[in-house]
Amino acid sequence: MEAVAAAAFNVSDPARVVATGGTENALRLLPHLLEISAAVVAGPTYSSHSDAWHRAGAKITVTPDAELAEHADKGVAMTVVNPNNPDGRVFDREQLLSLHDSLHAHGGVLIVDEAFGELDPQHSVADLAGTERAPSMVILRSFGKFYGLAGVRLGFVIASAAIAARLRHLLGDWPVSVDALCAGLAAYADHAWAEKTRQRLGRAARRLDKLLLASGMTIAGGTSLYRLARAADARARFTQLMSHGILARPFDHDSTLLRFGLPLAANDWRRLADALKVQP
Amino acid sequence: MEAVAAAAFNVSDPARVVATGGTENALRLLPHLLEISAAVVAGPTYSSHSDAWHRAGAKITVTPDAELAEHADKGVAMTVVNPNNPDGRVFDREQLLSLHDSLHAHGGVLIVDEAFGELDPQHSVADLAGTERAPSMVILRSFGKFYGLAGVRLGFVIASAAIAARLRHLLGDWPVSVDALCAGLAAYADHAWAEKTRQRLGRAARRLDKLLLASGMTIAGGTSLYRLARAADARARFTQLMSHGILARPFDHDSTLLRFGLPLAANDWRRLADALKVQP
Repeated sequence: MEAVAAAAFNVSDPARVVATGGTENALRLLPHLLEISAAVVAGPTYSSHSDAWHRAGAKITVTPDAELAEHADKGVAMTVVNPNNPDGRVFDREQLLSLHDSLHAHGGVLIVDEAFGELDPQHSVADLAGTERAPSMVILRSFGKFYGLAGVRLGFVIASAAIAARLRHLLGDWPVSVDALCAGLAAYADHAWAEKTRQRLGRAARRLDKLLLASGMTIAGGTSLYRLARAADARARFTQLMSHGILARPFDHDSTLLRFGLPLAANDWRRLADALKVQP
Repeated sequence: MEAVAAAAFNVSDPARVVATGGTENALRLLPHLLEISAAVVAGPTYSSHSDAWHRAGAKITVTPDAELAEHADKGVAMTVVNPNNPDGRVFDREQLLSLHDSLHAHGGVLIVDEAFGELDPQHSVADLAGTERAPSMVILRSFGKFYGLAGVRLGFVIASAAIAARLRHLLGDWPVSVDALCAGLAAYADHAWAEKTRQRLGRAARRLDKLLLASGMTIAGGTSLYRLARAADARARFTQLMSHGILARPFDHDSTLLRFGLPLAANDWRRLADALKVQP
């Protein structure tokens, strides 16, 4: 399966691709694997990254994107989620390589969490991670998001052959379930489905934007799997949606934001439009 | 699911029971969790135990059962597989508690791998592990052996509330798959099936012993899921069985031993009898 996944990730050597029981499982092991005592996370983002380093006893700094470069001349483990969750911010490959090169020169490591990397493959740096061009770059990939099967627990670490080998020993034999193997083998081999799904998700994301705009919110970002919308009364809208049985995601760091997943069936679109008091 | 499993393991507080993606996954993390630099394993046994400590940089000693007590007055992590694989040797609860008490007094930990613990529940010390009676005892339980579903990747660590909490953080959210949750919930709640299966396995193990004895081998040990048999010509028998499409398990440390799993269907029993040149 690692070979099939490597081809989907555009990675030339499957020895650099390690299957794990989900990205969450993998990222919790990175502090023990990399043995670096200070970590920087570009944030706000998925909170497990900073929690993992904190729990492992590392000094942890969460910093805005604009200040990342200031931390790249140290021997730290720097984590960038790309595209980011929830705002969808994307760094291009040149920016990521520049961060990597500076970190690498100072004994640091750049971790790029590409949990949503399937949505926009041209920004992925998976092909370079762990090669001579980017030896201190580590990529996380997630099966559950794009392929819609979070419950099978499948994710990947892409890294240098040396880091990959140490991770395999830390995971032990049989790191993923038979169901995860079967699902991964089928899904990663089906490049046509992936391309069709990218287009379908793009259309659905544009449709969701129209609905959110019509309800009086502005679009603050997102990917084509989720949209981040802003309104001064976002907390009241959250409660209103809940009363219709619809869960949007509020954020502690900004009370004007709500993250929306894509509705699937025609009836789901109607329910959301109804809850937002918009004509569908 | 941890509550249902705790009841099946006779553990009073589910906070001491941590679900993992298999015992193998869990035991590889123990060196990082316990932070002990020297380990002793009662062996020969399942080789991942010593490998895990070795890979984590610990000093590792594999020692016969008879010499275990000599190592219990040190601050080491001692692993005992009980019942043992492949010979089925069983330590009773008093022996395990005595080892624990000595280790605990010296800052050490006793790890009891009860991968086959369902077969003989009266020898389990899961009820005591991590309680005031045995604070430095850690138990490993495996779902895949007794319940026959190794591919779902499900295992448990039973330990003090403090060690359990640290393990939960190291595993992160969603440590096991939805399939593992469903299988575990159903299986551990069905105590009647477990009792019936113990009796069925016991009958099959006795039947397998008769077949192996009739073929000229002696019984060197085992549990009711596998039997360990001895013959001077065990390697030739291994090759003979292979030519019939039957895989027995040879061992590097003793060329006269073969481990046999239980045949299931009537036709499997006939095939084994035929390969062993015995009347079924």
